[in-house]
Order: sequence, then structure tokens, then C-alpha cells
Amino acid sequence: MAIELGRNQYGKAEARVVRVYRSGERHEIRDLNVSTLLRGDFGDAHTRGDQANVLPTDSQKNTCFALAKEKGVGEIEDYALDLARHFAGEIAPVSSARVEVEEYRWERVSVAGQPHPHTFKRTADEVRTTAVTALGTAGRKGTPISWVVSGLKDLVVLKSTGSEFSGFLRDRYTTLAETSDRILATSLTARWRYATNRRLKSWDEAYEQIRQVLLEGFATLHSLALQQTLFEMGRAALEARDDVAEIRLSAPNKHHFLADLSPFGLDNPGEVFHAADRPYGLIQCAVQRDDTEDPGPAWDSATAFEG
Amino acid sequence: MAIELGRNQYGKAEARVVRVYRSGERHEIRDLNVSTLLRGDFGDAHTRGDQANVLPTDSQKNTCFALAKEKGVGEIEDYALDLARHFAGEIAPVSSARVEVEEYRWERVSVAGQPHPHTFKRTADEVRTTAVTALGTAGRKGTPISWVVSGLKDLVVLKSTGSEFSGFLRDRYTTLAETSDRILATSLTARWRYATNRRLKSWDEAYEQIRQVLLEGFATLHSLALQQTLFEMGRAALEARDDVAEIRLSAPNKHHFLADLSPFGLDNPGEVFHAADRPYGLIQCAVQRDDTEDPGPAWDSATAFEG
Amino acid sequence: MAIELGRNQYGKAEARVVRVYRSGERHEIRDLNVSTLLRGDFGDAHTRGDQANVLPTDSQKNTCFALAKEKGVGEIEDYALDLARHFAGEIAPVSSARVEVEEYRWERVSVAGQPHPHTFKRTADEVRTTAVTALGTAGRKGTPISWVVSGLKDLVVLKSTGSEFSGFLRDRYTTLAETSDRILATSLTARWRYATNRRLKSWDEAYEQIRQVLLEGFATLHSLALQQTLFEMGRAALEARDDVAEIRLSAPNKHHFLADLSPFGLDNPGEVFHAADRPYGLIQCAVQRDDTEDPGPAWDSATAFEG
Amino acid sequence: MAIELGRNQYGKAEARVVRVYRSGERHEIRDLNVSTLLRGDFGDAHTRGDQANVLPTDSQKNTCFALAKEKGVGEIEDYALDLARHFAGEIAPVSSARVEVEEYRWERVSVAGQPHPHTFKRTADEVRTTAVTALGTAGRKGTPISWVVSGLKDLVVLKSTGSEFSGFLRDRYTTLAETSDRILATSLTARWRYATNRRLKSWDEAYEQIRQVLLEGFATLHSLALQQTLFEMGRAALEARDDVAEIRLSAPNKHHFLADLSPFGLDNPGEVFHAADRPYGLIQCAVQRDDTEDPGPAWDSATAFEG
Repeated sequence: MAIELGRNQYGKAEARVVRVYRSGERHEIRDLNVSTLLRGDFGDAHTRGDQANVLPTDSQKNTCFALAKEKGVGEIEDYALDLARHFAGEIAPVSSARVEVEEYRWERVSVAGQPHPHTFKRTADEVRTTAVTALGTAGRKGTPISWVVSGLKDLVVLKSTGSEFSGFLRDRYTTLAETSDRILATSLTARWRYATNRRLKSWDEAYEQIRQVLLEGFATLHSLALQQTLFEMGRAALEARDDVAEIRLSAPNKHHFLADLSPFGLDNPGEVFHAADRPYGLIQCAVQRDDTEDPGPAWDSATAFEG
Repeated sequence: MAIELGRNQYGKAEARVVRVYRSGERHEIRDLNVSTLLRGDFGDAHTRGDQANVLPTDSQKNTCFALAKEKGVGEIEDYALDLARHFAGEIAPVSSARVEVEEYRWERVSVAGQPHPHTFKRTADEVRTTAVTALGTAGRKGTPISWVVSGLKDLVVLKSTGSEFSGFLRDRYTTLAETSDRILATSLTARWRYATNRRLKSWDEAYEQIRQVLLEGFATLHSLALQQTLFEMGRAALEARDDVAEIRLSAPNKHHFLADLSPFGLDNPGEVFHAADRPYGLIQCAVQRDDTEDPGPAWDSATAFEG
Repeated sequence: MAIELGRNQYGKAEARVVRVYRSGERHEIRDLNVSTLLRGDFGDAHTRGDQANVLPTDSQKNTCFALAKEKGVGEIEDYALDLARHFAGEIAPVSSARVEVEEYRWERVSVAGQPHPHTFKRTADEVRTTAVTALGTAGRKGTPISWVVSGLKDLVVLKSTGSEFSGFLRDRYTTLAETSDRILATSLTARWRYATNRRLKSWDEAYEQIRQVLLEGFATLHSLALQQTLFEMGRAALEARDDVAEIRLSAPNKHHFLADLSPFGLDNPGEVFHAADRPYGLIQCAVQRDDTEDPGPAWDSATAFEG
Repeated sequence: MAIELGRNQYGKAEARVVRVYRSGERHEIRDLNVSTLLRGDFGDAHTRGDQANVLPTDSQKNTCFALAKEKGVGEIEDYALDLARHFAGEIAPVSSARVEVEEYRWERVSVAGQPHPHTFKRTADEVRTTAVTALGTAGRKGTPISWVVSGLKDLVVLKSTGSEFSGFLRDRYTTLAETSDRILATSLTARWRYATNRRLKSWDEAYEQIRQVLLEGFATLHSLALQQTLFEMGRAALEARDDVAEIRLSAPNKHHFLADLSPFGLDNPGEVFHAADRPYGLIQCAVQRDDTEDPGPAWDSATAFEG
């Protein structure tokens, strides 16, 4: 019973690439956090310490910066596709390359009511994400097969009513009271997988549309549970976009407990809450089309090795 | 040469108070992080373990929640004044009370182009702050003397040009090249002290005005150094508001280094940067009126004990 | 082409359970961070908002605290098995339950050279982990099938020599110099899967043994690459323990760059380094037996939904 | 009523200096986080953008690395004194220089029971600190006047009994029950100021002694309140070391709440606790000699500008 190398991957994580575009006085900026992961024929590096097939992570980082100049940084999905296809197509030992990008958004500072040409303020907590995987071409010509999983994280939303929770399963450890009116709050992570090999004309437009659909779903559904809210948000996203094959949602239930003011002779009809840190509920689900194609390695990330 | 108790204070830190206002279908929320600190006649608690003068931090926390109902949470300065005056006026051993509030801001989710009545999204990183100190009245009637220091933190701004750095002092350890065009970026902390005992009709209006003045100052000054930028931002704030006695600014210089693309045969005229984490420059200054009154304990905080 | 619910799970995350054992004057403490995840027949909760099958996350949290009393908290693997089997065996709709535990370790404070009976100091950064998955029994009697994945995280190690990196693949973006002597440093995450249904007499002993094998492997192998170091560490762990089926290792390469002191006329033969934050290399691999049994849901965690 | 520049300072924060000493096969490492702050004649930089007096923060960083080679890094107080005196003595516009150092500690990995010559593991959370301030010499010869404030932070300690809290002041918002047996836990920050201009033969010895005195004080005092515990810890430190003029202690009260298991028919006599995050009590005090000399700028730090 031999011991052998299993799955493995390596890359450079969190290169902070900032790209400035200058067209006359008016500048644009793109502010990215870029990570690469390569898989392929790296057995000898592990078992014999032989680096002949190993492109250094330093070179991968250099590539992130160089392509930001050579190909430019437009929509993050295009930039990540450029990078992933480069590694998958140009570096022979690579069987698949994954490029993850977080984008931090900036808005123009307003001066005397006018947007300033080169001064920016970082905008909300929410981070836009993409993770692109491209299959190695093994020396053959042609464009690598690719998957794009885009998303957002840290979108913190709250509804101060329109949420209840009742009729649940009770066991001997259940003490929770049913409620017909509570605060529902979460910090949403959403990730949606586009159809294989699809390259959109405007990823930005898709992003804005899905983001808006998710927000509207959260707002308008009278929630019987966070599970229901997430499913309906996901369903609405898939209904809105034919090019999205699947969406995964992860939502901590950020509990807001009604403060007990009765010892002070005060009534508290849904007015004063304590926002708790831990523990928190965690609700996760995927919503997909019933004929969904094989996602291949689209969802394989660094987290599989970390738990 | 005896050993004695020196300065001391205690309180409850980081009570997460969320207040919902419901007027019919339309809700408002205020989301706060509230900390209290009491100073006074607490020697026996330290030297003899006698708690007779010690109001538990649990009671202080209860007060934060109870006053959110009894007095309400409008502008954070008013809420902090209510709390500080309560402790200073009602709790006999207290010689001064300090209440610090951070406010996290939410905006309405837009549904079909209309702001939703009870669904909110947390807005930008920037946090609004206030720290109110009130002197104990020692049993006398009347309103405690009070100081209000309001501010903001985590306001991340960047200008992609309009900043240079040259003509500096050189020593034998100086290798920095002069530059006539660089990225200038910071995460601004600003704190301004209002005139003693001043109670504004609209703290919100003052906040918005000062914030805008700071942003416009950052944007419009052609910067010869971050020191100059901060001073001019502070001066503009004091010029805009007679009721502000002093402003303190702290600004990490978030370095953006031009990526060296020359090994790849690429020119990089201010286009591709690496955003560094550490180390960072740190520039701090106060701007004040030349007849500024004694700030009393306005600036005394918990950090004096922590470094 | 219908839209349907895909994979889903929910639970309570990060209950901070602290257990004190008192035997006379001498106390023991266990300090845990406990998370639960349930999978099963929860379709109606998502699609219809019907909670009839949903055990509240609040009840799950209560169970974590109650079982800490009823069954006690000994080795974290046993405690997690108790919890996972409880949910899998007692809650009818559950098809599988996952319980994750982080343990923070404390050592006794030494007083006059003797360990104190009830005063403790938190010890190193390193966190011990386990993740136990148990299959639902669908009403049948008997013990649920279970998997135990134990591990550690945040084990920060550094070797100041005995590491080189050369002979690597070069492309047009490669500028890295080869080195025959560098600092190798990482913050190790390791997770090893025990054979299915195995219940050890002493999980503690296994933990200590594997931890020591990993440390010794890091120390003693003359490293040609972090890949090689990780593989050998993993192989040694599997050689040491027949009951371990597989180990996964994730290691950021925490770069230490030699400071360039030549402008100051100073030589720097491996003496003064700058410890960089980002970007960092990330090296990950699994080491397994060649006849490894199906891991079932052993590795399914919350991260699959978050990226 | 003119507007003027007030207090100001600038420097380079958080240079991560790692120093390796090699004596044959056996290495030693020092792992530091170094920050500098200069005060002095910098008015023109603020008001006119004139950098003639401004030593760049980049040069300050270079100096941190260069002196790590030229003077070496032994005890952090000596290294910080070297740096502070360099800036105060050599850079003409500087009226005072402050150098802050955090030290992260490593221990040797044990291999086959023997400490390894060049492999290290980072040790506990606790960080050793120092902050040295030196007055500028204004061109005169001689050693600058200096103050050393050393300390520790993140020393997390807990006692599972031997702590009570009762007899406290009650007001209308007090609901807390008295207790004669509770968990007392904190993450201690301690900073002690040595007598002015004192240069110790062994700062390490002083550090170890004070740390041990603090730990023993926490362990052995039957605590009637955290205030009392802190005062006695501080008093013991001053009694142990004549060269310490003052000590400041800051201690969050990390609350551990007894889990209510009564709904499940379980008794809980101090066995199962919930470790809460926020809010937390915060207790701070200074302990000093009654003839304490003027501390000068010893305590002036960057936090005065940040709140």
C-alpha cells in the first residue's frame, strides 16, 4: 500500500494590481487583488524536488502586472480570462489554471457638485469577484476551454421587518420562541457560474443586473426563513439571465436580539436591538437549472485544502 | 517613596446598539457601536477591592440600550451627550464620563427605482464617530460641562495625479528618487473638537459640511507632500465652521509603487502600480485656532493606556 | 428547463463553548469554537418557506452547550462525534451532520515554579481542529457512519537556512534569481482524514504525533522547494500512522526578502530581511494511500459555497 | 483669530525587520515590527509644502534595516535606543524621535528531543513591545535624553475561580446579580516606563521579571474586582523593580457567561460557559511612585491623533 501524491496546486496569492487609465485630464482606476493557481505535471517537484516544470510564483505575479499593461484591465472577467488562458495555453506543464480576482470599487469625489477627474473615494464594503478556470491545451492550438464564476461578497443587507420564523421542528433542546416579526440581516456571498466557454459582451452589465435582482429579492419577499429568501433570490437571478447555469449563496444570519428593557419599565416593540457577533446562523444553498452541464473544475479553489 | 494609584478609568466597550424607528410602513435605522468610560472616586475599588462606588459595566451597557428607547437615537452627538450627561450627573462618584460612538451607515435598497421602506444596504467603509466627555456635577444642579469631538475614520481616498514629492532632506540612508507625479492615497482619520459646551442644532449638517470640505481639499490641492495636504484640509475645515476649535488628522500614506515592467520590454508611464501593505508612511497633524480654549479632557481616551 | 434547488446546508457557526472541570482545587479547561452544519430533507424550507423539518440553529447551539455537560468535553474528536451522531441519529430529516471544532489551548501559569491549579495562559497561535461528519440513520438503529478529519492551522514555522530554489521553468516574465540559501517560512494548515468509522483511544496522542512528525519533517529536509517539503511532511505523517488515510497541506510561502543594503556600503550575507505581507506564494497538496477508500462527505465544508 | 498648525509628527510605520544571526550551524532570529515618528521643525512642510527639513519616511525605513546590520538587533530596547538616538542626534530638524518596536517570539523546533539549530516555531500570541523617545540635541554634542516604555500586549490569561464581584453601586439600570465565583479572563496590555535616561544591562531580564510578577499577581490574588487585580499586579511590578517609574495596565474583561442549561433539566455549577465577544468591560489604571519624575514625551504616541 504505497503512499502517493494526490491533488495539488500552487500559485501566487493576492497581488494588489492597480491600473490607471489616463485619457487627458480624466483618469480611470481599477483596483484588484489577483491570485493565480496552476495545476498540472508537478509531481517531480513534490517527490524529487525537481523544479523543471515549475513556473515560479514570482513569474506568475509578474505576469499579472505585465498583462495589466499589455492587455489592459477592463472588466475583471476579461482580465482573468486573459491571465488564465495565458497560463493554460503558454505554460506547457499546466493542465488547468485558475485566476481569482477581487475588485475594490472607487467613485469620483465630487467637487463643487462635479465629479473630479482624478480623485476617488473607495466605495462600499461589497467586493466584486471572479474566478476563471482554463484547461491546458497540451500544446494544441485553439482557445482553452474556460469557466467563469463571478460573484460578490460582503454585501451587508438588513430588513427591519417582513421576516418571520415559526413552525419549525422542535426537539428537547429547542427553546426558541416563534416570531412573526424580526430583523433579518446578512452579509451575502453570492457566486454564479456562467455557461461553459461563454464570453459576455458586458460582464459589468450582467453583474449589475444580478446584483440588483438579488437585492430586490431580499427586499420584496416576505421571508418565512432565510432559506426561502436565498432560494428565491437565486431563482430570480437564473430567471433573469439565461447565460447563468448555477448560483451559490452563503448567508450568515446576523442575529439582532431585542433588548430586554422590561426591568426598566420600558416597552420595546421592535425598536432597540443588540447586534450579536457570535454564534451566527449560516445558511447556504445552490440554485441551478435541471439540465445543468458539468461544471468541470469551475468551483475548485484553494479552500479545499484549508477547510 | 510610596506606590500609588495613578490615572484610571473603566467602562463597557462596544455595545452594538441598533435602533429602529417605525413610522407606518417606512422605517429608519441607526446602527451604533457604543463605549463608555467613567473616571472618578474609584480608588477603593483598586486598593481595597471595595465596589461601593463602582457602577457595573453591565449597568452602563443597560443604560446605553435603555436611553436608546427613553431618549431615542437621533444624531449620534445628541445620543452620546445624553449618555455622558446621565453618567456625569446621576452617578455620584463620577468626575467625568466619556461616551464614544461609531455609526455605521445604511442606505435604502432601491426596488424598481424606488427606495424600499424597510430594506437597507450598509454603505461605504467610512465610519462616523463622536466622543463626548461630560464633567461630573458633584451633586450640584445644572448641566455638566461637556466637550464633543466628532470625526470620521476609514475614509479611503486616492488621487492618481496632482501629487509630487521632492526637495526633501537627504542623509546617508536616503535612496528615494524625487517624483513630480505619483499616486497619493490614504485612509483618513479626522477628529474635530467643537467649542466647549456647544450644542449644535444639526450635527449632521456639520458632519456633512466638514466631510465635504476635507474631500474637496484632498482633491483640489496640488500636493507637494501629504503634510501640506492635511494642513490645508484642516485649515479649510476650520474656515468653514466657526464652532470647530481644532481638528486632528491622521493619514497613513498608502504607497502605490510603479511596477517595473522594463524586463518585459514594456514602458509604464504611471499606469500599472503595486499597492503595498507595509510599511506605510504615517502623517499626523493638528490644525487649531491661535486662541484655542483649553480642551480639558476632550481628547482623553482609552488609547492612552494601550500605546 | 426548470430551475431547482441544488446542494444546501445550514447550521450554527462559532459557538464559543468553554468547559471547566473541577476536581477539588485543580481545574481543567477546554476552550472551543463549535460550528454545526445539517444536510437533509430541507427542500420545503427553501421552496415553500415550510420549517417543519428545520431544527433551528438556536437549538443546535443549545445542543452544543448541553452536550458539553451531558457527555462532557474530552478530546475534541469525541465531542464532535457525540454532536454529529446526535444530529444524524436523532433528527429525522438529517441525512448528514457535520460538526467542526477549533480548540484554543491554555497552559497553567507558573507560580513560584509550580503550575497554578486554576490560572491559565493562552498558548501559541496554533489552533487544533477537527471536522466530523456523520450519516443520518434514517430511523434505523445503530451508530451512524462517520468520518473524522483532524488538523491544525496557524502553525507558523521558519527555517533560516536549508532551503534553496533553482532549476525552475523560465518564461518571458521570469526575473527571479536562483538561490541556494533562503529563508523558508509558512503558516501551515494541515488536515488529515482518519479511516472511515475509526474511533481512536487517544486522539490527543495521534495529534501530538502527527504534529511532531510535521515539524520534524519541515526542520530536517533540506528543501529544494516548498512542494517537496510539504510532500515529505505528508508522507512522514502517513508512514507514522496507519489509521490516517490522507493528509492535505496548505502553506503560504511567507516571503522574506533580503534587504538591499548596498547603497549604504553594507554587505548583507543572509542577515537582514524584510518580511513581506502580500503577495505570497501558496502551495497546496494532498498525500494519500494508493488504495484510499472513498472519503464520502468527509471534506464537504461551508467553504464550497464561499469560494 | 488665525488658524495655525498644532502638534504634528510623521514617520514610517510597521517595517517588518527580521534579523538572522549565524554562528556556525546555530542561528538566532529576531523578528520585529518597527515604527518611527519624528517631531520638530516641520512647519514649512505643512504650510508651504517645503520639504527641505523633511527626512523621507523611506529613509527612516532604510535606517531601520541598515542599523539592524550596523549596530545589530539585540534586545529591542537597545535597538530602539540606537534608532531614536540616531534620528534625534543626526537629523538636525528633529526635536524628538520616537521608535516603537513589537517583537514576535520564536522558539526552536525540537527534533528527536533536541532543539534544532535553524528551525523555529512562532510562539504564543503575546507580543513584547517597547517605545523609545529621544530628545533632539540641536547640534550639541552628547547623548540625547531618552525614555524607554516597555511592555507586552495580547497576554491572554484566565482564572476559572478565585474571582468575585459584589457590593457594587446599583442604579435604576442595574440588573447584574452579585457573584462569589466567576471566571475572570483578559487580554492584558501592560506598559511600564523606566526611569529617565536609564539604560539597563539586561532589558530581557527586566522583561521576564515583570512579566512573571504580573502573571503571579493575576494568579494569586483572590479578586474582588478586575480593578483590584490590576492595581496589585502593577504594585508588585514596581516593588520588584526600582528602575520602573510607572506602569499602565489595560484589561478588557472578557466575559464568560454561564450557559443556562435549566430548560434541559441540567444543573450547571460553574462548568459550561459561553465566551462572549462584545460588549466587554474595559478596565484601565496606572500605578506609579508618589515622587514620579516628569515623564516628558515618553507616552506620546500616534494614537493621540486617532482616538
